[in-house]
Amino acid sequence: MANHFADRLYDAVKAKKTALTVGLDPVYSRLPDAIKSHRDMNDEFDAAAAVDAIFDFCTQTLRIIAPMVPAVKLNIAFFEKYLWEGIEAYYSLIAEADELGIEVIGDVKRGDIGHTAELYAAAHLQNSELIGLEDTLTPDAITINGFAGTEGIEPFAKMADAQGKGVFVWVRATNPSSAAIQDFENADGQKLYEKIAEIVAEVADQPQRIGTSGYSNIGMVVGGTTNDVTAALREKYEKIWFLVPGYGSQGASAEDCIRFCKADGTGALINASRSIIYAYERPQYKEQFGDDWKRCIEQAVIDAKIELANAMQTKL
Amino acid sequence: MANHFADRLYDAVKAKKTALTVGLDPVYSRLPDAIKSHRDMNDEFDAAAAVDAIFDFCTQTLRIIAPMVPAVKLNIAFFEKYLWEGIEAYYSLIAEADELGIEVIGDVKRGDIGHTAELYAAAHLQNSELIGLEDTLTPDAITINGFAGTEGIEPFAKMADAQGKGVFVWVRATNPSSAAIQDFENADGQKLYEKIAEIVAEVADQPQRIGTSGYSNIGMVVGGTTNDVTAALREKYEKIWFLVPGYGSQGASAEDCIRFCKADGTGALINASRSIIYAYERPQYKEQFGDDWKRCIEQAVIDAKIELANAMQTKL
Repeated sequence: MANHFADRLYDAVKAKKTALTVGLDPVYSRLPDAIKSHRDMNDEFDAAAAVDAIFDFCTQTLRIIAPMVPAVKLNIAFFEKYLWEGIEAYYSLIAEADELGIEVIGDVKRGDIGHTAELYAAAHLQNSELIGLEDTLTPDAITINGFAGTEGIEPFAKMADAQGKGVFVWVRATNPSSAAIQDFENADGQKLYEKIAEIVAEVADQPQRIGTSGYSNIGMVVGGTTNDVTAALREKYEKIWFLVPGYGSQGASAEDCIRFCKADGTGALINASRSIIYAYERPQYKEQFGDDWKRCIEQAVIDAKIELANAMQTKL
Repeated sequence: MANHFADRLYDAVKAKKTALTVGLDPVYSRLPDAIKSHRDMNDEFDAAAAVDAIFDFCTQTLRIIAPMVPAVKLNIAFFEKYLWEGIEAYYSLIAEADELGIEVIGDVKRGDIGHTAELYAAAHLQNSELIGLEDTLTPDAITINGFAGTEGIEPFAKMADAQGKGVFVWVRATNPSSAAIQDFENADGQKLYEKIAEIVAEVADQPQRIGTSGYSNIGMVVGGTTNDVTAALREKYEKIWFLVPGYGSQGASAEDCIRFCKADGTGALINASRSIIYAYERPQYKEQFGDDWKRCIEQAVIDAKIELANAMQTKL
């Protein structure tokens, strides 16, 4: 496997023939009945039991999706809700995903200055060497918040370099109210997200950060629901991998998202979370596969891959 | 004790007669020798042992500072470095601080949209009701990153309302490179941090959020190293508590920081971290108190309080 994150991603997207990634945002109350009732000890209000059920659901889901998509995105907030018990499960899941050979993106949105940023980088990108934690794997890449500028991004980038990992800096969100901040415009008509993209691109475009695939290990998070102007970032920054959330439940179409891919299908990871992992709640799959929740998830992945492939054909 | 966070803070600042808060940023290698060697099992490279030493140092430091300052700021990154073991210690420390009757601010800088923000709010502001975690206290207030706009702030604000807690939104950082983003200026000469302050003030200025002290439970983080223009936020937003990092080691003077206090001494928490908790490394204290690291910390708190009081006298 390639030592450079951007190259691993490139190989994975080529091998799986899709830019689709699946986001694990597990909520106990939405787990399939089969998971919620399959053990004696199963209780939404018992932390250990809830974490156990969530972990079980996630590992089974990982086994379904791993052969089909290049990467999985784990949203740490859904684990952090269960405090340290949830955090331990989060790291255990990373190990499960790693065994299955799928790239793991930790959606952690951490961000701070100086030494604090270094410590977050250690927690989330460094495979721990501490006794007692020495077998703990961290994700292949994480999302971060670049609000503190270059000094807030570099500590993460340096740790990623040292560990053969990657960083996606949050540039433009999918939600309406983020526009008040992210589309804030200067006298030259440059928007704040474009300024942040400029700062990220500068950090990304260092020789040691560019892999043989031509991509940097430092990428950007840009919502799929944003407009065509935003998609111009694709043409502007050819060495950047984009992580594009919002496909599916958050309202971004396949056409919206595919704008961030290059013609060869690389350059973007298009993430769907709820529309895939809760596919068994959707009538179209429920009617077809009944209680077979795993089959529902599998079919939702297949359908999403086809939809993205068709959108790509139309674009070309 | 007041049920409203802003009122508790007001009472605490009045009672302790200072705006000074102490930040706990514990790094194993900088712990006093007495802590590093006082147990047989003590090893920087053993997670459990390192966390144990850090926890011991923090609880002893809390006992020194609790009678003297209104609040303590715990920087979660220093605990997160030790993964779930560190996170468990972080929550244990909150309980220790609570017993000592000092307000606790969790410096967590979390931020995301919608459901994810709700989960972070639950993890960091809701006293857990889950079996197995039911005795876990969360901080009285946390810092957050407001990059996603109102929709990213409201879930935290609502949880704070429900729990009698507070939120400080990161508006302006202390580090130089943050200016590229936070001082980004629109055609009307408004800077991004002023825009964010405007958004935060709107969330803060809701009737249910204003306590009897006249302050809101939603405040702002504004670095003490920023200029006089930034300090104009004090006059502009009279209902806001400012959390002002950077006093001491990060280079902000007492005069810089005191600009965020009103004439009665309330309205700002001025935070010093390293200059206090590592006071035993500073020649002025080392020479006076030798190996008595606790006495060094105590004197550093006294000196900082005097320095701030003098700066306040000069200002009035």
